[in-house]
Amino acid sequence: MGFREALDTPCLVVHEEILEHNVNVMAHYARSRGINVRPHQKTHKTAEIARMQRDAGATSATCAKLGEAEALVGAGVFDEILIANQIVGEQKVKRLLALMDRVHMIVAVDGPEAAQALSDACVAAGKTLDVIIEVNTGLNRAGLTPGEDVLTLARLLHEMPGLRLRGIMTHEGHVAQAKTADELDAVAAKAGEALVATANLLRANGFEIDIVSAGSTPAAFSTTKVDGITEMRPGTYVFNDNTAFRIGRIGPERCALRILTTVISRPSPDRAIVDAGSKTLAMDPSPSKPGHGYIVEYPTATIVRISEEHGVIELPEEARGLKVGDRIEIIPNHVCPTVNLQDEMFVVRDDEVVACWDIIGRGKVR
Amino acid sequence: MGFREALDTPCLVVHEEILEHNVNVMAHYARSRGINVRPHQKTHKTAEIARMQRDAGATSATCAKLGEAEALVGAGVFDEILIANQIVGEQKVKRLLALMDRVHMIVAVDGPEAAQALSDACVAAGKTLDVIIEVNTGLNRAGLTPGEDVLTLARLLHEMPGLRLRGIMTHEGHVAQAKTADELDAVAAKAGEALVATANLLRANGFEIDIVSAGSTPAAFSTTKVDGITEMRPGTYVFNDNTAFRIGRIGPERCALRILTTVISRPSPDRAIVDAGSKTLAMDPSPSKPGHGYIVEYPTATIVRISEEHGVIELPEEARGLKVGDRIEIIPNHVCPTVNLQDEMFVVRDDEVVACWDIIGRGKVR
Repeated sequence: MGFREALDTPCLVVHEEILEHNVNVMAHYARSRGINVRPHQKTHKTAEIARMQRDAGATSATCAKLGEAEALVGAGVFDEILIANQIVGEQKVKRLLALMDRVHMIVAVDGPEAAQALSDACVAAGKTLDVIIEVNTGLNRAGLTPGEDVLTLARLLHEMPGLRLRGIMTHEGHVAQAKTADELDAVAAKAGEALVATANLLRANGFEIDIVSAGSTPAAFSTTKVDGITEMRPGTYVFNDNTAFRIGRIGPERCALRILTTVISRPSPDRAIVDAGSKTLAMDPSPSKPGHGYIVEYPTATIVRISEEHGVIELPEEARGLKVGDRIEIIPNHVCPTVNLQDEMFVVRDDEVVACWDIIGRGKVR
Repeated sequence: MGFREALDTPCLVVHEEILEHNVNVMAHYARSRGINVRPHQKTHKTAEIARMQRDAGATSATCAKLGEAEALVGAGVFDEILIANQIVGEQKVKRLLALMDRVHMIVAVDGPEAAQALSDACVAAGKTLDVIIEVNTGLNRAGLTPGEDVLTLARLLHEMPGLRLRGIMTHEGHVAQAKTADELDAVAAKAGEALVATANLLRANGFEIDIVSAGSTPAAFSTTKVDGITEMRPGTYVFNDNTAFRIGRIGPERCALRILTTVISRPSPDRAIVDAGSKTLAMDPSPSKPGHGYIVEYPTATIVRISEEHGVIELPEEARGLKVGDRIEIIPNHVCPTVNLQDEMFVVRDDEVVACWDIIGRGKVR
């Protein structure tokens, strides 16, 4: 039986051949540039895909939160994990220390308060923690301004026992605002150059900087063109999504993860209701065109509204044959929060379900 | 220790006294109008709150999906459940039949295709299923146009063995677009009147219509003012949210569920980063003011952007004392998808954590 009939809906379907291709493309590119891929686990949160990334050459993974790291360490895939985020609070510092007994950990810092707490805890436990400084190259989220501010924190860290400064990182997520591929390349290059210049400033002041780390799938082939970037931390690239293909570098055929959904109502000729709403697709907007996802079978149809368990699709003439019970595939606007809503993903190959993978890091927000 | 220190973040915190008050206000109002509350479980998905609703007088519950119903039936709270949604597909019909062995089920229908499949399955199993017809009173999602279209389907249902028509329902969710309380009342009244007129049309044609059911928390005290409405199906009212208090009928003091979050970075005087992003707050927009939630301690501060694990807060002068490690409470824009992102909620009373409730229906999207 084909997967469209075999599975109940709504559910996550992963096209395994596309997934493998995506993982290989990134690994191949990184090798060609002589840099590391430290793949972000937030996108898939799945041991099987982590293993695929490891087998393609990754020796370390990135996580957003300790909970994600704990799930991944439990699966035993990587010996080193970078938390590309600040660790703040007594409960979390305790969990970090416990993780350090199991794998090599690296943690981001962007200010003296959080760093001091990490230092105190490491000293009390007789441990040394590797840290990297988060740099703000334009996203204006966390992170220090490139240059002198980073040097100041590096000097403070040097005075904090139990911490060892290993490098610097940025998440150049603001490239997603670019309207064209050329604009994206330019914004990414600027971010990469600011990061490398800061690394060189630290080196000129006597710091050993091994890691100069850029993030973000949209900029994966752009920021990394800057000489001096040593690694990247893409996440979304394993699946890609409706955001990824808007600037025309890839198309829906490179989107490995889709939501399989059923038409449950046809209240009027130009409207179909599917059983995937915001609790399945997530509410992230599309940067390219209006709507809550890309319908693979009917690219000209628009998911005009979603409520929690309903998707409302406006049907152009050519899609009006859709009937109650029909199943269609939707590529989500942003795949990461979509995956985070489900407990498992179904893997298909040659039209058949070949595996079911647990999303072990789902909901690990702490 | 106070709950703000005892809990790790981000997490869901339920203020039990507010929750109890909200449940009682709705139960009291419904009794005063002589109508039933068939509370929607999609909001909390939690056995403890279902019991609270039952103890306040509800004899039946509403669910959006079979998965929610299965979780609730497992907890043994209600003997009757309405699925206020279409059931389509072989797998789901099988699960519905299994649920019918355990509790009394009622299911929405809005067209002959889904109804015919239910009829065939019930006949084969020697069972009778209660159905209600979904009517579109203006939301333009699923449901039939009030009046003749409903009568036509009622006549078709009458010819389908194994089905018994019990009534009609609407979800007047379009009231949420109203800009003022008066406008909301007017839109809700119009929806209620269309529903009652349709019920009377069916009765005039010989159908016995016991259930005339309205939905939606924002319209709970409005649609139900129309004589002839026999029940309502509010969900959000147990917690309320940033959407609920925008038109001024209730304030944040009636919002029982908040996200406890920690400041993890203070990159500039007017910016704070918290550890709650879209994977915690959900991405639903606010209908009242820009931003991704209402900060209880600093109502004038705005959560200007969220990414998956970060909230970016713009701080007005009076909030600039916020420092790394501080904890604040956020009332989400839309509480239902927010709850759906976590596995548990922590219950607080008199500043202490008094319980932890499992969100048993979380992620039951099928």
